[in-house]
Amino acid sequence: MVVDKAEVRKILDAVKAAGRASLTAPEGKLVCDAYGIPTPGEGVATSAAGAAKLGGDIGFPVAMKVVSPDILHKTEAGGVIIGVKSAAEASAAYDTILANAKKHKADARVEGVQVQKMLGGGVEVIVGAITDDSFGKLVAFGLGGVLVEVLKDVTFRLAPATNDDAMSMLNGIQAHEMLEGVRGSEPVNKAAVADVIVKVSQLVADFPEISEMDLNPVFATKDGATAADVRIVVDFDQKPARYRPEEKDVVASMNRIMKPSSVAVIGASAEDGKIGNSVMKNLINGGYKGHIYPIHPKAESILGHKAYKSVRDVEGVIDVAVFAIPAPFVAGALVECGEKKIPGAVLIPSGFAETGNMKGQEEIQAIGRKYNVRLMGPNIYGFYYTPANLCATFCTAYDVKGKAALSSQSGGIGMAIIGFSRSAKMGVSAIVGLGNKSDIDEDDLLMFFEQDDNTEIIAQHCEDLKDGRAFAEVAKRVSKKKPVVMLKAGRTSAGAKAASSHTGALAGNDKIYEDVLAQSGVIRARSLRDLLEFARGIPVLPTPKGENVLIITGAGGSGVLLSDACVDNNLKLMAMPDDLDAAFRKFIPPFGAAGNPVDITGGEPPRTYQNTVKLGLEDPRVHALILGYWHTIITPPMVFAKLMVEVKNEMLAKGVEKPMVASLAGDVEVEEAAEYLYQNGIPAYAYSTEIPVAVLGAKYKWARGAGLLK
Amino acid sequence: MVVDKAEVRKILDAVKAAGRASLTAPEGKLVCDAYGIPTPGEGVATSAAGAAKLGGDIGFPVAMKVVSPDILHKTEAGGVIIGVKSAAEASAAYDTILANAKKHKADARVEGVQVQKMLGGGVEVIVGAITDDSFGKLVAFGLGGVLVEVLKDVTFRLAPATNDDAMSMLNGIQAHEMLEGVRGSEPVNKAAVADVIVKVSQLVADFPEISEMDLNPVFATKDGATAADVRIVVDFDQKPARYRPEEKDVVASMNRIMKPSSVAVIGASAEDGKIGNSVMKNLINGGYKGHIYPIHPKAESILGHKAYKSVRDVEGVIDVAVFAIPAPFVAGALVECGEKKIPGAVLIPSGFAETGNMKGQEEIQAIGRKYNVRLMGPNIYGFYYTPANLCATFCTAYDVKGKAALSSQSGGIGMAIIGFSRSAKMGVSAIVGLGNKSDIDEDDLLMFFEQDDNTEIIAQHCEDLKDGRAFAEVAKRVSKKKPVVMLKAGRTSAGAKAASSHTGALAGNDKIYEDVLAQSGVIRARSLRDLLEFARGIPVLPTPKGENVLIITGAGGSGVLLSDACVDNNLKLMAMPDDLDAAFRKFIPPFGAAGNPVDITGGEPPRTYQNTVKLGLEDPRVHALILGYWHTIITPPMVFAKLMVEVKNEMLAKGVEKPMVASLAGDVEVEEAAEYLYQNGIPAYAYSTEIPVAVLGAKYKWARGAGLLK
Repeated sequence: MVVDKAEVRKILDAVKAAGRASLTAPEGKLVCDAYGIPTPGEGVATSAAGAAKLGGDIGFPVAMKVVSPDILHKTEAGGVIIGVKSAAEASAAYDTILANAKKHKADARVEGVQVQKMLGGGVEVIVGAITDDSFGKLVAFGLGGVLVEVLKDVTFRLAPATNDDAMSMLNGIQAHEMLEGVRGSEPVNKAAVADVIVKVSQLVADFPEISEMDLNPVFATKDGATAADVRIVVDFDQKPARYRPEEKDVVASMNRIMKPSSVAVIGASAEDGKIGNSVMKNLINGGYKGHIYPIHPKAESILGHKAYKSVRDVEGVIDVAVFAIPAPFVAGALVECGEKKIPGAVLIPSGFAETGNMKGQEEIQAIGRKYNVRLMGPNIYGFYYTPANLCATFCTAYDVKGKAALSSQSGGIGMAIIGFSRSAKMGVSAIVGLGNKSDIDEDDLLMFFEQDDNTEIIAQHCEDLKDGRAFAEVAKRVSKKKPVVMLKAGRTSAGAKAASSHTGALAGNDKIYEDVLAQSGVIRARSLRDLLEFARGIPVLPTPKGENVLIITGAGGSGVLLSDACVDNNLKLMAMPDDLDAAFRKFIPPFGAAGNPVDITGGEPPRTYQNTVKLGLEDPRVHALILGYWHTIITPPMVFAKLMVEVKNEMLAKGVEKPMVASLAGDVEVEEAAEYLYQNGIPAYAYSTEIPVAVLGAKYKWARGAGLLK
Repeated sequence: MVVDKAEVRKILDAVKAAGRASLTAPEGKLVCDAYGIPTPGEGVATSAAGAAKLGGDIGFPVAMKVVSPDILHKTEAGGVIIGVKSAAEASAAYDTILANAKKHKADARVEGVQVQKMLGGGVEVIVGAITDDSFGKLVAFGLGGVLVEVLKDVTFRLAPATNDDAMSMLNGIQAHEMLEGVRGSEPVNKAAVADVIVKVSQLVADFPEISEMDLNPVFATKDGATAADVRIVVDFDQKPARYRPEEKDVVASMNRIMKPSSVAVIGASAEDGKIGNSVMKNLINGGYKGHIYPIHPKAESILGHKAYKSVRDVEGVIDVAVFAIPAPFVAGALVECGEKKIPGAVLIPSGFAETGNMKGQEEIQAIGRKYNVRLMGPNIYGFYYTPANLCATFCTAYDVKGKAALSSQSGGIGMAIIGFSRSAKMGVSAIVGLGNKSDIDEDDLLMFFEQDDNTEIIAQHCEDLKDGRAFAEVAKRVSKKKPVVMLKAGRTSAGAKAASSHTGALAGNDKIYEDVLAQSGVIRARSLRDLLEFARGIPVLPTPKGENVLIITGAGGSGVLLSDACVDNNLKLMAMPDDLDAAFRKFIPPFGAAGNPVDITGGEPPRTYQNTVKLGLEDPRVHALILGYWHTIITPPMVFAKLMVEVKNEMLAKGVEKPMVASLAGDVEVEEAAEYLYQNGIPAYAYSTEIPVAVLGAKYKWARGAGLLK
C-alpha cells in the first residue's frame, strides 16, 4: 500500500497548531487522497458565482456542503443541499447554505462551500474507526442510512485490518446480502470496499491521534467504492501505551510461578480456619513435591515444615510466594520477595482496588514493577496446577487431572468452576483466580498455557480485559494451536461513552468484544454452563477433518431437535450421497428414514445402532457423528453406551477417529450411560438435544478458526 | 368499523368470473375504499392526453403504473414511472409505459395507466396478509424497502387482529425505533398505521378467498398512513375448514379418557416383554383403582383380572381402551370400541402415517369420527395421569405427583420427559404421547388441562400444529389461567413455500410460530432443557406482583452474570431507592456494594444473607429476588439453604410471598443445597447463573401475558 504519511502529518500538524479537534471536509479529502481512499471530484467555492462555475467544471448534479470548523453536524445545521442540477441552482444553494449556517450559529467561521460530484446508485455503506480504551484502534463497517443506525448492524476489527479481516466484515453484517445485489441490483465490488476498510484501518494505526473517523456514506457500486463524506476527529492528548513485558520474560516467570520447585507461604499458620493454614494443608495434602517454606514471625515450624521469619531468611531459591496476610502487610512482604528475587507473588488478600483502596493497589504494582515480581491478584482464591499436584489456594484440594486450564476474574465463579469440575469429572490442568488483575492477566496465562504440554484447552471467565489489544494479539496466535474459550461477563454494562462520530455511537461495548474475540479465534461462551461444558467437551473430541456432520437417531423427534441445534451452532448437515443412503437403508427398517438424520426408528436392537454408527465412521465423506439414543427394552442405555464405545475403539484401532457426541432420551438409567460415554471419549448428555451439539459446534468453531478444516 | 362488504363481494365476483387470480390496482383501490384503508388520489388514464389531464387534476408530482391483468410485477416490466412532474412528462410517460409493457409481454392486455398522487416523506412500511396452512389468515407488518426484505424484519398476527395486536406489531419489529422519529424526523402516527393493519386483517378474515395481500409501500407520516400500492391475490378454491368438535364435547370425552373409571386393554397379555403385558402391569402396579378389563381372544384371565374376547362382551361402561395390538388389527377393534360407545382409544401401535401407511390412518380416523371415539396417537407410548395413579403406557410406572402436565409429539422426547421428571423430582400430573395426532392434539389437551384442578402448568413438545388456529384460540384463553409452555421443534425446516407476494416471501414458517405463540400468551421454550426446567420451576414460583427484580449476591462475579441474564430474559433490575439502599448498607461490609445487585461480599456469615434477603422480601417495592450464593467456610451450602427456606417461611407466615430463585457457586456440596432449596420452593441451580434467571423470566413472561402485572 503506497501512502503519503508526510502529507497526513502536515495536515494533522496544522490542525493541532490551530487547536482544532476535527478536520474540515477538504482536509479530510486530502488525508484520503494520501492513503488512496477514493473520493468524488470536488472543490471549495467561496462565492455563489464560484459555486456555479465549480459545479459546471465537475459536472452536475453536485452536492454542496458548508465548510466550517465550527459546524460538525452539517445536515442538522442546514448546511447540505444535494441534487443541485444547474449553475443557477448552485448559485442559489450557496446563498442558502451561508444563510442557514449563520442562523444555526451566528459566529460560525465559514470557509466556503464544498461542491462535490453527486454520487448515486449502488449501496451506501459506512466505513469508520474509533479508539477503544481496551482494544485501541478499531475499524468499523456497516451499511449507511438511518435504518442501519437503528439496528446497529455494524462490525468491528482491530486496526490495522488485513484484507481477509475486511472481507470477513463485509460478510459479517446481518444485511450482507445487500452487497450481493438484491431484487435486480448489481453486486457491489467487494474488493474495492475491503480496500477502503484496510486503508482506513492502516491510517488510524499509523496516526494514533486520529481518534474517530467516518466515511459516511461510501458509495459502493459494481465498479468501486467512493467516500462521499469524510469526517476525522483528532485527539492529540494520547495516553501512554500500557507497559507490556517481553513475551520471553513473561513465559519464563510464569513457568516458575505455575510449576515452582519451591513455594513460600507468607502468613502460614498452624491454626485451623486461618487462610494460611488452609494453603499449607492444601500444598501438603495435595501432594506437592517441591520445597514448602512457611513464613511466620515466630513459629519454629508449621505442619512439619521449618518456618522462617522472612523469605530473605530462606537459603534456597523460591519460585513463588503465596500471600495469606492482611492487606496492610502485603507491601512490606512484597519488597522482601523482591529482594529475594522471587519471580511471582500470589496475592490472596482482599482489601485493595475492589474495596476502593486504589492507592494500596498502586503501591504493590509499583513494587512489583521495581523488583520484577509478577503479581497474581490481589483478591483471589489462588491457583491450582494439577500436573505438579499444586494447590496454592485456600479452597479444597482438587483431584481430577486433565487437559483443561481454566481461570476466573471472580472468586465466586472460580468456586463454581471447581465444583463443576469435580462433579462432572472434568480433567483440569489448572484453575487460576485473577481477581483484581493488578498485573498478571488473561494474556499472561495464554502465553504460559500455550507452551504448557499439560494443557490442551484454555477457558477463561472475565469481566473486562485491561488490555484487550494485548489479549487479542496473543489469543490470535495461541488459538491456532489450542482452543481458547471465553465467558465475557458484563455484556449489558455497555460502555455508553459519549461519542462524536456515527461510528462511535454505533459501537456497543459488547459488540466490540464479540467481533474482536471472533477475529482472534476465541470461542465465546454465552453462559457459565457453556464455558464449563466447552472446557470439558472440547479436549475429549478429536478434531474433525471436514464439515460433513451426520445425525444417527433412534428417535425421530430427537433428530428434529438435533437438526435445529445444528443450525443454531452453525454445523452443516451433510447432504446424503445416494450410495451411502442405500448402504444405510440396508441396516434400518423399511419405514425408517435414511437421508440426514438417519432415523433408525425406536424399536431396533443394538445391532442397528452398531451397524449404522460403524458405517458413519467408516465412510470418509462423513466427518462427525451426532447420536440420538432412545431408551427401549430392546436396547437398554448401558448396552447402547458400551456398544458405542466398542465401535469407537474398533475404528480407532483401524486409524479412524471422528468426533462423536450423543443425546440420550430415556428414563434415569440414561444418566449412567451418559457418564460412561463421556468418560470414554463420547460427550453425551441425558435429556438434552442442544448441549451435545453446542459442544461439537464449539469444537468446529475452533477447528475452522485454526485453519484445520477446508 | 364501517365496511362495505357488498362492494368487495362484487369486485371479487367479477375477478372470479373473469378467471383471474389477482386484482388490478384500481380494483385493489376500490377494495381499500370499501374498508376505509386510505389510498392516494388517483385515476386511470387510457391515453397520453388523458394521463396529462388526470395528472393536472390530481396535482403533480404523480406516479404512473401500468394496469394489466397479465402483468403482476409492474416494476420489472418497466410499467412504473415515478416523479412525473408536468403534463408533458405525463404524456411521454404514458407512451413509454405502454411500449415497455408490449416489450415485456407482447400479448398483455393493457387496460390503461394508473395515475396516482406521489406520496413521500415519513416512513415507508408494508402491511400485508397471507394464508398459512395451519394458522389460516395472518396479517403482516414491517418496514418497506429492500433492506427490510433482506433482514426479514417483519411480524405476523392471526387475522382478524385487534388494535392491541396491531400496536404490538408496530412495537414488535427490530427496527421499531424508525417509527418513533430518528435523527430529527417526526414520529409517525402509529394509530393510523395500526388502523390499516386492523382493517387489512378484517378484510382477509371476511373474505377467505383473498389469499395474499400487499400494501407496499404504505407511507406513514405524522398525519396518517396511506397505501400507495395495493396488490391482492385471490384463490377461490378454498379447502374446507377442518372439523372441530364442540368444546364441551371435547372436555367431556377428555375427562373420561384422562380420568377413566374403567380401562380396557386391547391386546392384554400375560407374557413378559409384550407391550400388552407392560400396560397391564403398569395399570396394576401403578395403583390404578378403577376397573381393568383385559381383552384377549383366548385367555380367561390376565394378571388376576378377568379377560374378555371383545370390549363388547364387557358389561360395565368402559371409558378408555388402550390398544396394544399390531396395526392391521386396530381398525376392527376400533369399530367394536365404537359399538361399545367407548369415548377414547389410546393407540400405541405404530405402522400408520409415520411408515407411509396413510390409508390405514385415514381408515381409523373415519371410524373414530363415525362412532365418536376420540383417538390418541397412533404411534405413541400412551399416557400417564398421576392423580388417578394411571399409567396407560408400556413405559415404567411414574411416581412423582405434582402439577405439571407435559406432552410430546415424539416418543423419544416423551422418554426424556419421563427420565428428567423422575431425576429432577419434578411433580407431574400427566405425561401424554400424541404421536401421529390422527385426532387428539395439543388443543384438546389444553381444554382438558384448563379445567383439571390437578394441573397448574402445561408444557408441550410439538413438531407441527395440525390446526394452529384452533390451538392459538384455545391457548389464548387457557394461558390467561395457567402457563402454557411450548417447545416447537423443526424450526429450521422453514416452510419455503413458493409465494407470489412480498409478504409471502417474508414469511418464514418459524417466525409465524414465534409471533402467533406470543400473541396467544404461550411461553416458547428454546430447547428441550428449557421446556423441562420451565415445567419444573414455574409452578414452584409464586406469581410476582410487579416488575422490580432485585439481585442479592455473595459473589460480585455472579452478580454480573445474573445481571446479564436478567437482560437476556427481559427482567427489569429495580432502580434502588435511596432509603432502601441505606437500609441494605446497614447489613453489609463498608466495601460491599448496595445498588442492584446488592453485593454482600464473599466472606460474610449466614446472618448477612438472612438480613438482606429478609429486607428484600419485606420491602413492598421489591417483587422478586435472585440470590447469588458463594460457598465459603463461614457460610456452608446447607447452612445457606436452610436459612433461606426459614426466611422464606417466616415471611410467608406474615403473608409475604415473592418469587425467589438462586444460583449457587461452590464445591460439589452446593448440589445438595440446590436440591433442598428447590424442594422447598426456591428453584436453585449449581454452577449456573443463567438457568435460574431463565426460569424466573418464564414466570414473568406468563404473568405479563395473563395480565397479572401492572
